[in-house]
Amino acid sequence: MIVMFTDFGADGPYLGQVEMAIRRTTPSLAVVNLVADAPRFDPRAAAYLLAALVAEVPAGTVILGVVDPGVGGSRRPVVVRVDGRWLVGPDNGLFEPLIRRAAAVEAWEIVWRPARLSSTFHGRDLFAPVAARLAGGMAPDQAGLRPVPPPRWPDWPDDLASVIYMDHYGNAWTGLRAAAVAGDWIDVGGCRLKRAMTFGDVAAGAAFWYENSSGLVEVAVNGGRADCLPGIELGAFVTI
Amino acid sequence: MIVMFTDFGADGPYLGQVEMAIRRTTPSLAVVNLVADAPRFDPRAAAYLLAALVAEVPAGTVILGVVDPGVGGSRRPVVVRVDGRWLVGPDNGLFEPLIRRAAAVEAWEIVWRPARLSSTFHGRDLFAPVAARLAGGMAPDQAGLRPVPPPRWPDWPDDLASVIYMDHYGNAWTGLRAAAVAGDWIDVGGCRLKRAMTFGDVAAGAAFWYENSSGLVEVAVNGGRADCLPGIELGAFVTI
Amino acid sequence: MIVMFTDFGADGPYLGQVEMAIRRTTPSLAVVNLVADAPRFDPRAAAYLLAALVAEVPAGTVILGVVDPGVGGSRRPVVVRVDGRWLVGPDNGLFEPLIRRAAAVEAWEIVWRPARLSSTFHGRDLFAPVAARLAGGMAPDQAGLRPVPPPRWPDWPDDLASVIYMDHYGNAWTGLRAAAVAGDWIDVGGCRLKRAMTFGDVAAGAAFWYENSSGLVEVAVNGGRADCLPGIELGAFVTI
Repeated sequence: MIVMFTDFGADGPYLGQVEMAIRRTTPSLAVVNLVADAPRFDPRAAAYLLAALVAEVPAGTVILGVVDPGVGGSRRPVVVRVDGRWLVGPDNGLFEPLIRRAAAVEAWEIVWRPARLSSTFHGRDLFAPVAARLAGGMAPDQAGLRPVPPPRWPDWPDDLASVIYMDHYGNAWTGLRAAAVAGDWIDVGGCRLKRAMTFGDVAAGAAFWYENSSGLVEVAVNGGRADCLPGIELGAFVTI
Repeated sequence: MIVMFTDFGADGPYLGQVEMAIRRTTPSLAVVNLVADAPRFDPRAAAYLLAALVAEVPAGTVILGVVDPGVGGSRRPVVVRVDGRWLVGPDNGLFEPLIRRAAAVEAWEIVWRPARLSSTFHGRDLFAPVAARLAGGMAPDQAGLRPVPPPRWPDWPDDLASVIYMDHYGNAWTGLRAAAVAGDWIDVGGCRLKRAMTFGDVAAGAAFWYENSSGLVEVAVNGGRADCLPGIELGAFVTI
Repeated sequence: MIVMFTDFGADGPYLGQVEMAIRRTTPSLAVVNLVADAPRFDPRAAAYLLAALVAEVPAGTVILGVVDPGVGGSRRPVVVRVDGRWLVGPDNGLFEPLIRRAAAVEAWEIVWRPARLSSTFHGRDLFAPVAARLAGGMAPDQAGLRPVPPPRWPDWPDDLASVIYMDHYGNAWTGLRAAAVAGDWIDVGGCRLKRAMTFGDVAAGAAFWYENSSGLVEVAVNGGRADCLPGIELGAFVTI
């Protein structure tokens, strides 16, 4: 299975182009679109979202992680293996929280290059073929990879105390694991919010925060949209 | 085949999380996203949309139907078999029109619980694994189901005379089967509209209603968007 | 493999209905959503987008191309084979640039009709079953096709010098192949723009044009959105 975590959008054409590139190598493999609206041009925010979702990804899966504003520049293309899952994408910090939390980490630089490499779409031209080779069972050295020390971003925090994702319902995901919050009250973008277990625990129309189904602190409104509250927006700071 | 009918949004991450949960049990099964923008938090409107679409679903298919504002509360998780198709989801009326129109109905409560059940995402944690088991051919009693009388919502109408869905083109779907309308004229949200067979039968820019490709009364504008007309909005009433 | 190029939207229900119709005939075939937001009601603009993307489609693939404002009217349903790829859809010019650029072209009219043919959704009722038959290996005469001369739209230009697609990032794709532009400067919707190789070659916030990863002239802003510039909108003219 290959799982795509990108900022490409579900409507097209980028996700379909990547899937076609994968199917050129492995025609019948399952290809799952996990996230197509990761924080645009923001590998740091995206990294904490990806880290929260990877726990559900079955071992052996190849994750194509592409939030890549530096495409065509000097950032390296890499493969990282964390606790039995493969990550393929740019070396821009997107995999940092996963590497930091992993028990076992190996890393490679992608030295293989396709016959035709566009300057702006390495997701299709470089990362998809490599992901397909690994998902098809090819060994790293056969797939055009060269072992390197894991790429690290040591200055980044263990959790990101800000809003990193607004979902389809208007709920605001933060990059903060709920397990790291001891008390009941937090402040998000100027809103003071109390912890609840789930939507039904607060009055209709009331705002609250809770541990979402991926383990993160999320701001929500029972029967409403958190993204309508003043201050609840991408990048808003969380204070515990 | 598993077909997903949800209000999760196509961009992510919810649809992909459900698909990963399915593939954990049945890796190579076809998983189709039928609707990801069902009426949000509104199982009643969603129920009449689902009923109109199920006629096209091949027999033997498992339909994961999740519009579930009561998740984490007291509503039961259920499986219903209607005329050879499986429905898996919350007992909140979402399957009522299908049950009412079916020749053969069987129902079960899902008594199985996963090791880890979030309070807000039963689509991923509970319904997806059960759907995968049934699609993989497991018998109901092996899949953790207990026979119950079909869950019924007897007060609901046979057809819902209001706008239940605005499509990508701006067309307004109602919950009213066209076969139930004898005359040519209807009123929707204050607009008086005449029946036509198809778009080309009216002048450019003219509003009309017609029997859409799923058998429902739909309001459209030839070469334009019905959702720009005053009064044509989700929940608008239809008067015959 | 079947690849869908449509204006149906990814959220539903149209794309899923087409995929279900395909799976009725060929249950385990790969079905890829390449584009679900092709220019709405505009087969001419869509045609130049499709032509740019088809180079990446593996030979033998069946492409379901449906941008079909004339559905239910007199336009014919057709199949065209260009350089080893099958195209299935309406005879409204959508395949003209591909036919014009192809080395080998064959064409058929679809004379088969399903038992139930809606007047507004031939993508589901007519084109999907024919695409599934061809992808499953059925010969044209068995699939209900009758050879005809290729449908042609001779008055259309070789390249379309206007904006045909706004992507998820706000970039503006034109219907003009970059290889056709000799100089460095172009004018798009009143904006004078200089060529660059990639985003990193211009200052943050600067607008430019470049050859995108599908070979077309595209207008972009480094770290911003081209669709926020005055005049950069669907249909805007390009002057070389």
